[in-house]
Amino acid sequence: MNYDSLPNQYRYKKVEQEISRHIEAGDLVPGDRLPSLRQMSRSLQLSISTVNHAYEELEKRGLIESRPRSGYYVRSEFRPIPTPEINIPRHIEPRTVTKNKLIQTALETVGNKDLLPLGVVCPSKELLPARQLAKIMNSVIRENPYETAGYEMIPGNLDLRRQIAFRSVDCGSNLTADKLLITTGAMEALYISLRTLTRPGDLVLIQSPSYYCFLQLVENLGLRAIEIPSCPERGINPDRVDEITRTFDIRACIFSPNFNNPDGSLTSDARKKEIVEILAARKIPLVEDDVYGEIYFGDTRPRTLKSFDRDGGVLLCSSFSKTIAPGYRIGWLAPGRYLDKALEIKATTNVSCVAPTQMAIARYLRETLYDRHLKKLRTAMKEQMADMRTEIGLSFPEGTRVTNPTGGSVLWVELPEKVDGVDLFFRAREEGIGIVPGVVFSSQDLFSNYIRLSSGSPMTDELRSGLRRLGELAALQGGSATHS
Amino acid sequence: MNYDSLPNQYRYKKVEQEISRHIEAGDLVPGDRLPSLRQMSRSLQLSISTVNHAYEELEKRGLIESRPRSGYYVRSEFRPIPTPEINIPRHIEPRTVTKNKLIQTALETVGNKDLLPLGVVCPSKELLPARQLAKIMNSVIRENPYETAGYEMIPGNLDLRRQIAFRSVDCGSNLTADKLLITTGAMEALYISLRTLTRPGDLVLIQSPSYYCFLQLVENLGLRAIEIPSCPERGINPDRVDEITRTFDIRACIFSPNFNNPDGSLTSDARKKEIVEILAARKIPLVEDDVYGEIYFGDTRPRTLKSFDRDGGVLLCSSFSKTIAPGYRIGWLAPGRYLDKALEIKATTNVSCVAPTQMAIARYLRETLYDRHLKKLRTAMKEQMADMRTEIGLSFPEGTRVTNPTGGSVLWVELPEKVDGVDLFFRAREEGIGIVPGVVFSSQDLFSNYIRLSSGSPMTDELRSGLRRLGELAALQGGSATHS
Repeated sequence: MNYDSLPNQYRYKKVEQEISRHIEAGDLVPGDRLPSLRQMSRSLQLSISTVNHAYEELEKRGLIESRPRSGYYVRSEFRPIPTPEINIPRHIEPRTVTKNKLIQTALETVGNKDLLPLGVVCPSKELLPARQLAKIMNSVIRENPYETAGYEMIPGNLDLRRQIAFRSVDCGSNLTADKLLITTGAMEALYISLRTLTRPGDLVLIQSPSYYCFLQLVENLGLRAIEIPSCPERGINPDRVDEITRTFDIRACIFSPNFNNPDGSLTSDARKKEIVEILAARKIPLVEDDVYGEIYFGDTRPRTLKSFDRDGGVLLCSSFSKTIAPGYRIGWLAPGRYLDKALEIKATTNVSCVAPTQMAIARYLRETLYDRHLKKLRTAMKEQMADMRTEIGLSFPEGTRVTNPTGGSVLWVELPEKVDGVDLFFRAREEGIGIVPGVVFSSQDLFSNYIRLSSGSPMTDELRSGLRRLGELAALQGGSATHS
Repeated sequence: MNYDSLPNQYRYKKVEQEISRHIEAGDLVPGDRLPSLRQMSRSLQLSISTVNHAYEELEKRGLIESRPRSGYYVRSEFRPIPTPEINIPRHIEPRTVTKNKLIQTALETVGNKDLLPLGVVCPSKELLPARQLAKIMNSVIRENPYETAGYEMIPGNLDLRRQIAFRSVDCGSNLTADKLLITTGAMEALYISLRTLTRPGDLVLIQSPSYYCFLQLVENLGLRAIEIPSCPERGINPDRVDEITRTFDIRACIFSPNFNNPDGSLTSDARKKEIVEILAARKIPLVEDDVYGEIYFGDTRPRTLKSFDRDGGVLLCSSFSKTIAPGYRIGWLAPGRYLDKALEIKATTNVSCVAPTQMAIARYLRETLYDRHLKKLRTAMKEQMADMRTEIGLSFPEGTRVTNPTGGSVLWVELPEKVDGVDLFFRAREEGIGIVPGVVFSSQDLFSNYIRLSSGSPMTDELRSGLRRLGELAALQGGSATHS
């Protein structure tokens, strides 16, 4: 770590975060003695007062404790949290999805600014390039008062499609502008895909857990879903895909290989290739959700399923909602061989997308501001997730387990078996804390003691107390005391 | 007519338009002598040179001719055009709608700036308040960089819903903000309504002719349609609605009582009331399209079907696309008793609408700019429609008939029986003229010799030559010479 690049006042913060991550990862276990201020100051080449500031903050957070005349120690109440190993019954039956009402209730928190932002998945406003984008939007509007007021083409603004196509080289998708369709967010891309591929009564294959809006869409379109387990550490297993598509008449698959919402799982590129080949051989179309693809914490962007597509059977859905501006509602669909039908569905749903927001995002991309922004965003998201895991480790009851994703912006928390996630959701909401209960991420009776937490916001005192309170509420239900 | 309010250079234009309207209405018939320049100048209190300018323009357009030493006469080639009386077979069968491909081709002209704007229904850019709106958008963005980038609530921006509710008093709808849902244009409102009310295989009742995007949506949702004739002069006949809803199991009606696209028909308020009562008694929901409701040429705004709704069975769809900015894609849905289901469909289609455009339109409405703009727009649209009817009378082959709507912005043209509208559509497109062939406005084999022309643009020399060329193309097909 190079501390010189940081302004003075943030250096202690950095030290604090690094130590808490070591503790959380189990490198430092409860009872371990921390290096003395002097040692630490020497090895990090930072002033003693900076290190002291960091230690004080860690003590305030309850992670370490000072013992008189002895130094600082990792507090014994802290337990590292393992990744949940989800057990899913092997006998999987097609299900009619029926959790609509509960999902609707959870969705009502979208855009509700009174709730602590642990429910809605989107970076907090300080992390979005809102001011830059506002400037660009103003130029676009000023320079094109008529064009911004008039209809866009049905497939969407050509400049924007070109920019998206150009950028798609990074993830191996190699899209072209004429094969792209701009949509009102990735949700609309998914909706268009399913309307294009299925009819009511059809069977679709999804991951379990899956984003609840996908399940709700599946229900609303009168489809039936089969779920295959998504493993937080390895994502989708091609053998299971092979097994199920051999047994059932699957009309479409919906997979999120890159940081699946909610379990944050990443499916390896080798597995992706295998999955695409299995489905291509059986002529089963594959709808890919890649909204978190750009938020990777490692060195390289994970590839898309689309990048292994040879016959246009993969329909890639993505958006800028998790990286630039959710309110602009700009997503896209690369529908492969289903382009004509997809355009028909788009035209009869809402004709075309909003003109000025498309033009603004196109210019934002052209000015190469996006890559610099993404770099900062990735760093922030990675840190926030680590900070949240630390807090959960401190505040949540014995038996809690949490995922450790390598990208995305959600944590999937398994609470002790006695805790009811739905009950916790309602109790938390009463206290102004927005979370999402685990049951809505499956059409089966799974994940009743799970919750999903968004890690889109930097750790603040407010957020920290919210998390602690959440831990207390969970502990009250689970019958055991909290650790903070 | 008060000419004093007009700048000097436009007075002749006004005289020209008034005379051409008299000719077109049959007040002046071919061979009639026009008042002398001196007489006209005296009676209108305008200079002789102004009147002379007007007469010269009328002569250039081929409407009148000067006979040496005798004065100006209405040219004998001009024929007033009666309104078509559409004959629809009384034996109506439910149909699976199947004109998708042709409609798709027609739709490809949306946003195509290379075509003469006779195809797409939307006011030309000079008639939209684009500069005012751009200013407002700029303030909104500057003052709210974060809010405009963030998610809006699923039902839409509250300010905007309040403004729409407030304005709904005019058309008798009496909406409230909590019963409204903002949509991506009226098309999305219609789509949400049909997804809310129907399942594939269901039967819906529509007007004939009907807007082709409605038919395409009906086809895409796997619905079957029954058509009842829409009379250009009286709109929908409640007796036919009564008859058909007694005979068939109709799941929803889709009606455009105010200036139906394409025939421009207005259903009277008395008939509206009757229709709503018939359907309420049979518990059949009614989807109302009111996008042209504000573009009336008479003294008062026609009421909505919704204004007669007592039990929430009417789903009102509308937008600002025909009056403020189609590119902003702001529409709304008042779904009556189906609100919950409609919100569910909205959330799973694209979560919520674009934030900054909603905020800008809300402010535009709050600043009371809309009423002043609408007044100007109505006047312009009325004049343009009259000018177009005149040109059609001059240029189109013998046997052509055209509607005379009291609002809206389309003309429905019946060509001689031998003319094939689809063939004319393709030939016109080759020459850069965008029109829509009549057959796409019905699921039955009707209107093959009809075309729809948008009257959204002021008459220019370019538009005039386009219309003349269109008349020539029609005459070539019909086997008779044009009159110009």
